[in-house]
Amino acid sequence: MAGSRMKLELSKVVQGRSRLGQLKEIGRTGQHCLDIPGCLLFTHLGTVPHLTQDTLHTLSSLPTVTQVTLSNVAEHQEVLEEFKGGFKKFAGLHDTVLYCSLHDSAAHSPTGHTTNKTVSVWGSGGRIELTVAKYMALQRTVQPDWYQTMADGETRQTGISRKRVRKSVDRSLAHLDECLLVHQKSQELEGVSVFGVVEGGDILEERLRSARETAKRPVAGFCLDGFQNGAMDQALRSQLITAVTKELPEDKPRLLQGVGRPDEVLACIEAGVDLFEGFFPFQATERGCALSFRFNITSDPESAVADEEQHAAGETQSNGDLNCDDQTHTTRFEMDLKDKRYQGDFRPLVEGCGCYCCRNHQRAYVHHLLMTNELLAGVLLMIHNTSHYHSFFRAVREALANDKMDLLRRCVLGTEKE
Amino acid sequence: MAGSRMKLELSKVVQGRSRLGQLKEIGRTGQHCLDIPGCLLFTHLGTVPHLTQDTLHTLSSLPTVTQVTLSNVAEHQEVLEEFKGGFKKFAGLHDTVLYCSLHDSAAHSPTGHTTNKTVSVWGSGGRIELTVAKYMALQRTVQPDWYQTMADGETRQTGISRKRVRKSVDRSLAHLDECLLVHQKSQELEGVSVFGVVEGGDILEERLRSARETAKRPVAGFCLDGFQNGAMDQALRSQLITAVTKELPEDKPRLLQGVGRPDEVLACIEAGVDLFEGFFPFQATERGCALSFRFNITSDPESAVADEEQHAAGETQSNGDLNCDDQTHTTRFEMDLKDKRYQGDFRPLVEGCGCYCCRNHQRAYVHHLLMTNELLAGVLLMIHNTSHYHSFFRAVREALANDKMDLLRRCVLGTEKE
Repeated sequence: MAGSRMKLELSKVVQGRSRLGQLKEIGRTGQHCLDIPGCLLFTHLGTVPHLTQDTLHTLSSLPTVTQVTLSNVAEHQEVLEEFKGGFKKFAGLHDTVLYCSLHDSAAHSPTGHTTNKTVSVWGSGGRIELTVAKYMALQRTVQPDWYQTMADGETRQTGISRKRVRKSVDRSLAHLDECLLVHQKSQELEGVSVFGVVEGGDILEERLRSARETAKRPVAGFCLDGFQNGAMDQALRSQLITAVTKELPEDKPRLLQGVGRPDEVLACIEAGVDLFEGFFPFQATERGCALSFRFNITSDPESAVADEEQHAAGETQSNGDLNCDDQTHTTRFEMDLKDKRYQGDFRPLVEGCGCYCCRNHQRAYVHHLLMTNELLAGVLLMIHNTSHYHSFFRAVREALANDKMDLLRRCVLGTEKE
Repeated sequence: MAGSRMKLELSKVVQGRSRLGQLKEIGRTGQHCLDIPGCLLFTHLGTVPHLTQDTLHTLSSLPTVTQVTLSNVAEHQEVLEEFKGGFKKFAGLHDTVLYCSLHDSAAHSPTGHTTNKTVSVWGSGGRIELTVAKYMALQRTVQPDWYQTMADGETRQTGISRKRVRKSVDRSLAHLDECLLVHQKSQELEGVSVFGVVEGGDILEERLRSARETAKRPVAGFCLDGFQNGAMDQALRSQLITAVTKELPEDKPRLLQGVGRPDEVLACIEAGVDLFEGFFPFQATERGCALSFRFNITSDPESAVADEEQHAAGETQSNGDLNCDDQTHTTRFEMDLKDKRYQGDFRPLVEGCGCYCCRNHQRAYVHHLLMTNELLAGVLLMIHNTSHYHSFFRAVREALANDKMDLLRRCVLGTEKE
C-alpha cells in the first residue's frame, strides 16, 4: 500500500463515531505524529499568509502537517522541476509533513471546466488544466509526504442531477486508479501516502458507493469532498458523513475538505471526521476579524470570570447566520475589529490569550491599523487567529478525552448556562 | 532650552563638513544614543510596515530612534487622548526614542492647502487641518522624545516664486515661535527635544535667513525641509545644504527630510547632514524590489569574490535614472524581483547577507510570492531591505572613521575599479 508506514492509533471512540487518537510515523521519514481530531496548517505556496517561519513558530499548538494546494503550485511547476529539491525545500519549510491537495478551500474555484480526463485549477495567470499525467508529474516535483488523488468535485452546488453526481463518483474512481498506477511506478513517490477522494454530492447511495469503492483501493486515508460550506446544511452533512465514515476502515484517517467553522467542525467530528483544513483563521483575517469564540471549559475561575465579563460586554458577535454560505461574511465566532466600537477599546483581542498579538497590542491599536490599511494588521490578526483556532482543536481533543464534548459545544455556541 | 540634555559629540569632521559622532543622552530618560551619520527607523503608525516588533528585532544595526508622522497619527488623536499613555505605549513600542514629524516622506502630500495659520496632513479619512494649537495638542498626546515644529514646506516644486519661498520661511519661523511658546508652558513636554525646520526652497538667501533665524531659537536640532527628491538636482541640493549647515551650530544635529537614495545620502552627508529618514527601504519593498547595492569595502576576499560574481552576472539593475523624481521607479540600487529573470534563480537576495530572508529563502521563491500576490513577499522584502539599508549606514560610519568615503562612494555607485 502506498505510504503504508503511517499508523492510526485510536485511544477512544465516542458513540461509535467521534475518534480521539494519534496518527503515528507520518511523513517520509516517519518521525512525526499528528493528534486527531486535528487540523492541518493552511498555507499559500507554503507560507501561512503574512507570517515568516520565525513568527509562526512563536505559536504553540501548531500542527505537524502543512497543506499546500496545486492551485497555488501548478503554475510554478517548471521552476520547481529545475530546482529539483522539492517544494518543502523551495519554500523554506523545515521539520513538517507536507500534504498536497488539489483546490484551495479559502478561494473560489469556478466550475464548469471539468472534463472526463481533466480538472482545472486557477493560478495567478489563469486556468491550468490538469490530466492525471500532469497531476502526477506535479506530485513528483512537489515531493509531498501526503497527497490527495485527482478528483471531480463539481457537485458542490445544490440541485446537481443524480446523473452528474454519478459521473463525478465514476470519474474520481477512475482518476484514483490512474493516479495509483502512476504512483506505484514512481520511485520519487516511494513512501508517500495517498488519500483517496470520496465524492457523491448529496445523494446517499452515491456517497456509499464512492466510499466503498475508494476503500477497496490501497490508499492511506480519505478525503471527504463536496461537503463545503454552502453545499448543504449541517443536518444533511452530518447524516451523509456518518453514513460514509461507517463504510471506511477504522484504521485510516478521514480528512474533510472545505469545512472550518467551529460549530460545523464539532458536528463533523461527531459524525466521524478526523482531520480538517485550516483555512478558517485566514478567512477571518481577510475580513479584518479576530476569532474570539470561547472554548475554555477548564474550571480556572479567573479565566471563567474574564470570559463572563467579555460575554456580558457583548464582544462576541452574534450576527452570524449559522447557515450563511458567504465566506466573506463575519461569523458569530469572531469580532469585527473594523467596527467603531473597538476604537477606544484598550483590551487585548481575547483576554487571557497568550499569542504575540494579545500580549503586545490592544483592540484599539489593531482597529487603527485596519482603518489605515496598515499591513501589520493582517500579520497580527493572522498570528492571533492561527493561535486561537489551533488551540480550539487542542480543546476539542481534551474535551473528547474527558467526556466533555457537550460542555464544549455549548461553550463554543455561546449557549452555555452556569 | 527644550530638551537640553541631549549632547552631540563629534569624533571627526571630514573636509569641514562630513560629521562622524554620537548623539548622547537622547530621549526623555536620556538612556539612548544614536550614531551619526545615521538614519531613523521609518514606521507607519509606529510599525515598520509588515513587521512585528519580534521580527524587527531579529535585525542588527537598527537605529535607536523611531519616526512616526502626524499624517499617520492625527486622525487618531481622540483615542490617543483617551488612552493617555502616549503613542509609544499605544503602539507597543519599547525601548526606543520616538521622533514625531509632520509629513510622511514615503507618501505623496497634495499641495495648495497651506494657509497663514494652518498646515494640512492626509489621513485615511482625508485632509486634517492643523493649527499650531492643534499641532501642539497632538504632540502632548503623542508624547514623543523629539518632534519637529510646524512648518510651511510647500516649496518642493520647481519654479516656486521668490515671494512664496519668503512667505514659507516667515510662516515657518512664526510657527516655530508659537510652538516653542506652547512647549514651554506644557508640563507634558518637559525634557522633549524640539527640531526647528529650515525652509527656503532653492533660494540661497532665503535658506540662509531661515537657518540663521531658526538657529537663534532654543531648539535641540534642525530639520532641513524642501530638499525632497524631485525638488532639485543633487548639485544644487549639495550647494544649498553646505551653505545652510555652515550657519547652524556645530553641536546640534541636522536631519534631512525626504532624501533616501544611497548616492544622494552620501552626497548630503558630505554637505553636512547628520540624520536621514528611513523611508527608502519601504519604497523599494512596495515596488517589489530588493536593495542590492554594494557597500562592503572591507578586504574580506571571500565577500569580494561574491560581490564580483554578482556584479558580473549583472544582478544590479542599472536602469535607474539618477535624477528621476518618480518614487515608484526602480532605482539602480535594487533588483526588481518581479522580473522573470529571477524565477529560476535559487540564490539568496544578496549573497552573504545575514538577514532572515537571505538566510532562508531564494530569489526564485520571493519572485513566486510576488507573482502570486502573496503578502509574505512584503514581509520578507521589508526584512531584507531594512537590514540592508541600515547596514549601509553602518558602513558609511566605518568609511568615515577609516577615511574611505571615496572608496565607499565608488562601491555604492558601482564605479569601483579593482
